[in-house]
Amino acid sequence: MDAATRLLIEHECGKLPLLFAKYADDGDHAALRELFTADATYDRPFQPGYPFHGQDAIQAIFRDRPPILVRHLVTNVLVEAISATEARGTNYVVMMSNHAQIEPPQSANGIFVGGFEDEYRLVDGAWRFASRKGHLALHEGGTIPSFPPPTDEARGLK
Amino acid sequence: MDAATRLLIEHECGKLPLLFAKYADDGDHAALRELFTADATYDRPFQPGYPFHGQDAIQAIFRDRPPILVRHLVTNVLVEAISATEARGTNYVVMMSNHAQIEPPQSANGIFVGGFEDEYRLVDGAWRFASRKGHLALHEGGTIPSFPPPTDEARGLK
Amino acid sequence: MDAATRLLIEHECGKLPLLFAKYADDGDHAALRELFTADATYDRPFQPGYPFHGQDAIQAIFRDRPPILVRHLVTNVLVEAISATEARGTNYVVMMSNHAQIEPPQSANGIFVGGFEDEYRLVDGAWRFASRKGHLALHEGGTIPSFPPPTDEARGLK
Repeated sequence: MDAATRLLIEHECGKLPLLFAKYADDGDHAALRELFTADATYDRPFQPGYPFHGQDAIQAIFRDRPPILVRHLVTNVLVEAISATEARGTNYVVMMSNHAQIEPPQSANGIFVGGFEDEYRLVDGAWRFASRKGHLALHEGGTIPSFPPPTDEARGLK
Repeated sequence: MDAATRLLIEHECGKLPLLFAKYADDGDHAALRELFTADATYDRPFQPGYPFHGQDAIQAIFRDRPPILVRHLVTNVLVEAISATEARGTNYVVMMSNHAQIEPPQSANGIFVGGFEDEYRLVDGAWRFASRKGHLALHEGGTIPSFPPPTDEARGLK
Repeated sequence: MDAATRLLIEHECGKLPLLFAKYADDGDHAALRELFTADATYDRPFQPGYPFHGQDAIQAIFRDRPPILVRHLVTNVLVEAISATEARGTNYVVMMSNHAQIEPPQSANGIFVGGFEDEYRLVDGAWRFASRKGHLALHEGGTIPSFPPPTDEARGLK
């Protein structure tokens, strides 16, 4: 692969984690859905080990929760082109939010730092997430939320 | 627009929010001024709704305040090329500062997370801000500063 | 230098601060070593003024410390191509860590914001750090660690 092709792939894929953050923060779950391939998997940073399967299940996470005031700050976006249609990457995410009062500006309930291991695939002329595997590393303030495990149905397994 | 042209525009415009942060943090108000078009507008994140008009009024914000120790961490820089001479974008900014003691390192008075909606224009061969519209979303620690509304004169309206 | 060449150089060099963070956070001191030229210097953000000289001395900093849970969030990556084989740049780094408990997730001991002035050089077809000069600017929470000055031997001067 020549340097210019590699650069274009890395540039295009490198936008995906930023667009994911934008759509998540804007509450635009329909646009967020389109960032994923039809058969993508998504493993949440706050509950790794329970990947969600497919666009429907992934969209539902963001569609069916109450509105929150949240910012996902994305840094350290590294992309590696594997072929003309496949790439992978890693990135960090800093999450700050307020679930009670959603009219900005508000104070945040802690600063949470995690990240993703991503796989990207070119489908119908657009690069998309084939998989996102999240993790949580550190937090300053706040308490780590405790979710009940998602059902198989919610995870798109049934 | 072909992919290479688009990439170059996005790359060049994507530097502007980082250069803005660099010049603001370095106290280089003259260089900061040159990032804006002559008729640009700038709406401050801590006081949205009172846009400043023109290079003189924008430069004066940074020139006429006491020196502070500040860092603007810029993330989530997304740029969309509209034409060969116009682009727009969004980005997040994390602001930390100490106004009392300016010799680094110092403790910060809170962590403030906001961002900008930007418009970029190619003028005389260089991409510049045609407008920056700031907002504040969340903060961890610290208190949101309360400014008196700027005068019309300060805002470049007279 | 034409715009495409400049873009490629800035893209390649812009990855180096992110790879440095990745290898530091992953504890991969062997890969981190290879990001530097043989005669590179590295001046630590928490102890500027005592540059380490050469790949061996730089690798040893990361190899010989106890394992820690750490994240280096890299932002504001600006690169300026000087020639076909030389570039320079600046970037900010937010550091959060826990030295006592290293199994993620953990609470962090403060948020430290600093950065680097970098020089990059093309050696054997790969861009590398010729020098990294760190500084610390602000912190929220935590206390600034106090290290004894490194020996000349540790710094690669003997």
